[in-house]
Amino acid sequence: MALIVQKYGGTSVGSIDRIRNVAQRIKAERDKGNQVVAVISAMGGVTDKLISMANELGQEPAERELDVLLSSGEQQSIALLSIALNEIGVDTVSATGRQAGILTSGSHTRGRIEDIKPDLINNYLAADKTVVVAGFQGTNPDGLIHTLGRGGSDLSAIAVASAVKADLCQILTDVDGVYTADPRVVQKARKLPEISYDELLELASVGTKVMQSRSVEFAKKYGVKFEVRSSLNENPGTIVTEEHEAMESVVIRGVSIERSQARVTITGIPDTPGMSGKILGSLAEAEINIDMIVSNIAHDRLARHSFTMHTNDLGRAQSALKKVLDEISPEAEIETEAGIAKLSCVGIGMRSHSGVAAKMFESLGEAGINIGMISTSEIKISVTVDEGEIEKAARVVHTAFNLDD
Amino acid sequence: MALIVQKYGGTSVGSIDRIRNVAQRIKAERDKGNQVVAVISAMGGVTDKLISMANELGQEPAERELDVLLSSGEQQSIALLSIALNEIGVDTVSATGRQAGILTSGSHTRGRIEDIKPDLINNYLAADKTVVVAGFQGTNPDGLIHTLGRGGSDLSAIAVASAVKADLCQILTDVDGVYTADPRVVQKARKLPEISYDELLELASVGTKVMQSRSVEFAKKYGVKFEVRSSLNENPGTIVTEEHEAMESVVIRGVSIERSQARVTITGIPDTPGMSGKILGSLAEAEINIDMIVSNIAHDRLARHSFTMHTNDLGRAQSALKKVLDEISPEAEIETEAGIAKLSCVGIGMRSHSGVAAKMFESLGEAGINIGMISTSEIKISVTVDEGEIEKAARVVHTAFNLDD
Repeated sequence: MALIVQKYGGTSVGSIDRIRNVAQRIKAERDKGNQVVAVISAMGGVTDKLISMANELGQEPAERELDVLLSSGEQQSIALLSIALNEIGVDTVSATGRQAGILTSGSHTRGRIEDIKPDLINNYLAADKTVVVAGFQGTNPDGLIHTLGRGGSDLSAIAVASAVKADLCQILTDVDGVYTADPRVVQKARKLPEISYDELLELASVGTKVMQSRSVEFAKKYGVKFEVRSSLNENPGTIVTEEHEAMESVVIRGVSIERSQARVTITGIPDTPGMSGKILGSLAEAEINIDMIVSNIAHDRLARHSFTMHTNDLGRAQSALKKVLDEISPEAEIETEAGIAKLSCVGIGMRSHSGVAAKMFESLGEAGINIGMISTSEIKISVTVDEGEIEKAARVVHTAFNLDD
Repeated sequence: MALIVQKYGGTSVGSIDRIRNVAQRIKAERDKGNQVVAVISAMGGVTDKLISMANELGQEPAERELDVLLSSGEQQSIALLSIALNEIGVDTVSATGRQAGILTSGSHTRGRIEDIKPDLINNYLAADKTVVVAGFQGTNPDGLIHTLGRGGSDLSAIAVASAVKADLCQILTDVDGVYTADPRVVQKARKLPEISYDELLELASVGTKVMQSRSVEFAKKYGVKFEVRSSLNENPGTIVTEEHEAMESVVIRGVSIERSQARVTITGIPDTPGMSGKILGSLAEAEINIDMIVSNIAHDRLARHSFTMHTNDLGRAQSALKKVLDEISPEAEIETEAGIAKLSCVGIGMRSHSGVAAKMFESLGEAGINIGMISTSEIKISVTVDEGEIEKAARVVHTAFNLDD
């Protein structure tokens, strides 16, 4: 008998019929002799509807109240799924975030999970009940409700799995698992049976929207092995786990792309301490996420910084930079380029294999694709290319590293 | 500066516009310099929709889960009203039943309020915030959610008013106040400026659906003065309070009617101890509420019991009675009469005035209305009449006691 935590998203519980389907899946797990803790989201559409009501009533609804409002969505779905499970003979109880002992800190609408006190869940499991837990929510030490922000239900599931010492945590979603590349772009992409936390983190950070990074980081921190699999079929998914030796035999685990990128280059900045901090700080203050950063010093001892960001942020970035440069370095110049995309190769095998970057660049060169910026980390190499060439680039690299099906 | 608890029902917060209206009413109270704790229900219609979803998923949804499901309705409305209040400059926070410290006992869907620990509310009031509390819900000592059953939000409001020592509790509803009689039946009915708990209890128990009895009983027990008034206009309502001397100068406070009644008479029961208990016990077991009870002993030393009930219960009552009589008194006979109605006069003035019953019976007799059963309590006289004559009877008695406008 195994203890399995299963997470179902809003789409999976988005209608009465889908709730019934999820109940059947959980029953199938019970029939195999396993215990199940299901962590679920609000029914698809409910959250949007609640937000739109809040926006009708207030121009900037207080985040404290948004948390009270939105957390009601999961409260409904856990009760409904429990009712559906009881109906088919699976003895089930629901637990809100608070009842599940999910303790949060941080600010409203962006709560962090601080700790889980799973006493109630454990009591129910000891009585051999199935438990349905509200994802995306918890309460702070004052008893106020926090929601956990985007991807919060995944986080809840992994945290609950850790707290109840589950044998496995399954993230059931609308994708089949983690692929070597986006199958819509690279037709020969393959589903990976296994991937390490770090590899998934690097892939996630460059646009493979399987899971939010913080859920993966949480899983890594607490050593929670989880499986990403489809809620629509019974195919095995991808196990995300700590890296082990056998994983290193594969040089590159996957390839990912990120579109709609823009490059900003600032030239003519005096090479004095603190300059980069001020420049990047001004962008952080404007809540602009920058990604690849390349800096160097020209022969005139003036620094040159380049970084990429989403095209949507370009205008705001220029305003913010003008303001700070007027202050610290009036002779600096800003140059921008939109219409680029980022291609990344990710794999822990890079650590023990040499020539990975060379192979990537060569394969792109042979295909006549020009490389812009380059940045590397221990297990990732990223380059920018013209956006029009990004799909071709992904296919070329996918083939070069023998990832094709 | 006064501290006012205001209760708004589901109709009053049934749409975005109505929530805005309620926010304006609360703001008007704040503008007068008063502090407000609003206790509100779920938006009208929400509860029914949730129940229908639950019924789609389960033939007999677990009451534990119904409580989790239904309590989400108030959680939404308190957040939305708080957002609307903040939008118009009223610094407001919401509190779920649990956050408001409403401690319950009893069973799911029929929780009782055991205690209120209003620490959080008091802290917010001390910071001069307006507080919006979820009615109809609380949590038991295990942290499980209880809803309070029909009229639960009124009960919450009165309990909160008691706990925070409010100066006044206003029950804002779709009626203007408590009337001397139902204005649809007695056109000359008047709104009462004041009524005692006991009078309202007696009126409520005979069909004046202003409030559930248990809310009035709770208010009486804890001495909470409250006002029943309309949420749609600014007219003063009816103050419900402890009785005081001036109240006794009025003989009859009001007249109420109850339709669709049936009478059951059992004859030929041996007059031995415990018989009545067994007979009435069988009806209680079948969950049939009986109302007027008249018993006497015939010259043959056989007892005769009559009681009234709602016509809908008549069939079930007959089955239950047959069963118990077969056992205890096979020679007993059951006789039934449907198509009757009950007329009651209520007033604490009865205690100090004599001849009230005589006056009531005389006025009915003069109008040619035949009286069936009669029962009296300290402050109420009830009679049954043919259902076809009940409206006329109400008008006759209303006039006889000088209640006409």
